[in-house]
Amino acid sequence: MSVGRFIGIGVGPGDPLLMTIKAVKAIEEADLLVLPAKDKESCRAYMIAKEALNVMSIDQNRRRWEDAIDNKECIFEPFPMSMDKDELFKFHKRVAGRIAKELDLGRNAAFLTIGDPCVYSTVDYLTQILEDMGYNTERVNGVTSFCMAAARLGISLGEGSEEIHVIPGSADIDKALSLPGTKVFMKGGKRLKELRDRLILYEAKTGHRVYGAANCGFPDEKLAYSASEITDDWGYLAVVIVRGDSEQS
Amino acid sequence: MSVGRFIGIGVGPGDPLLMTIKAVKAIEEADLLVLPAKDKESCRAYMIAKEALNVMSIDQNRRRWEDAIDNKECIFEPFPMSMDKDELFKFHKRVAGRIAKELDLGRNAAFLTIGDPCVYSTVDYLTQILEDMGYNTERVNGVTSFCMAAARLGISLGEGSEEIHVIPGSADIDKALSLPGTKVFMKGGKRLKELRDRLILYEAKTGHRVYGAANCGFPDEKLAYSASEITDDWGYLAVVIVRGDSEQS
Repeated sequence: MSVGRFIGIGVGPGDPLLMTIKAVKAIEEADLLVLPAKDKESCRAYMIAKEALNVMSIDQNRRRWEDAIDNKECIFEPFPMSMDKDELFKFHKRVAGRIAKELDLGRNAAFLTIGDPCVYSTVDYLTQILEDMGYNTERVNGVTSFCMAAARLGISLGEGSEEIHVIPGSADIDKALSLPGTKVFMKGGKRLKELRDRLILYEAKTGHRVYGAANCGFPDEKLAYSASEITDDWGYLAVVIVRGDSEQS
Repeated sequence: MSVGRFIGIGVGPGDPLLMTIKAVKAIEEADLLVLPAKDKESCRAYMIAKEALNVMSIDQNRRRWEDAIDNKECIFEPFPMSMDKDELFKFHKRVAGRIAKELDLGRNAAFLTIGDPCVYSTVDYLTQILEDMGYNTERVNGVTSFCMAAARLGISLGEGSEEIHVIPGSADIDKALSLPGTKVFMKGGKRLKELRDRLILYEAKTGHRVYGAANCGFPDEKLAYSASEITDDWGYLAVVIVRGDSEQS
């Protein structure tokens, strides 16, 4: 019996139709799913995938894809909100051990993650540990949340020789703003208000355009075309885009 | 009769299965395709899309998707290699005018582009011009080449508080290398050799890891796990990734 593989599957940023064909097939082919939540309903990545596979089934007038996800065995591992590195590492080690037992039985396990598994994804820690343990792993790409935010806002992230800088919430805002080209602020969380207030001044001073998007692809999607339109209730998944001087203008 | 829409469709980085369901459907629903090439065979984006729709058809045992792309009317507009801004602008204006005539007839036109339409895509110039002319436009996201490069290399582009900097070929290499976090060098073109030579020294000095990928998803895919493995024949679509100090190590 051969050992199974661990597959980190990006389900894209929210719009179920932005899932790739590869992600759909990888879910169908997996023996079990690993979900970072207490149940299916509270797992955003699962609900996106379920909707995508439903659409594929409707499209084909048969329930093949729908059944593929509905009947799949699931392991639930709600990820802790803790930022304590030791605690997180212990958690990842334990979950990796649980997955390894399934892989040893020759089963392929797929972890569903929002966006792309290579861009700020929790699946990366598990993948690294399982790789270190000698298991085969794979990453199935997805559309990132910042690409979808740009598309929904009707803008480009970068053209020609423009640089694109992706800045997580904990970074120094002023240092990031001094970079040339486009700045993409992600995972602002609690610091979103501070960022917004800083950008209202920045916008007035530089004339550079500030955009924001939250919950792209969901019914409660929010889009902003200036810093002042970003409100405090936007939450963790907000993306804020600051464009530099345009090349063609 | 209503006016048609212009849709920039990202077909992803090369692996046909990395096309999104949305891109497949948008191609099926478009009245005509605009291709930046002299014919279908020399248009990489078209050939990726064709393969993706073939796979969808085989999967369903019917030719619906395959026929949808094979029978589609195409406009061919090989993009000039010129870097002259005036010449390029004139070219884009002329192509936009040609597309506008089709939109006026109530037809939806879809432009196929490699990767994502919001990340260094030629479709952006056309989209901007058509928007300025008052037409409705849409961007259908795709997986970017740098995300696929990371997945194929088995690495993450960024975790936790790491920044990700996407740097086009014309940028100052040393300035880019001084940035914290991950540096993604794209569209190196003629300067790829200079970048490689610089990174061989950088790698030795800092101990930071250098990775490279070219033609991901194609039979001639190349992967490098140190700067010295990047060779001169890698060409325009190469992606070079420089990781900073790892967070978890």
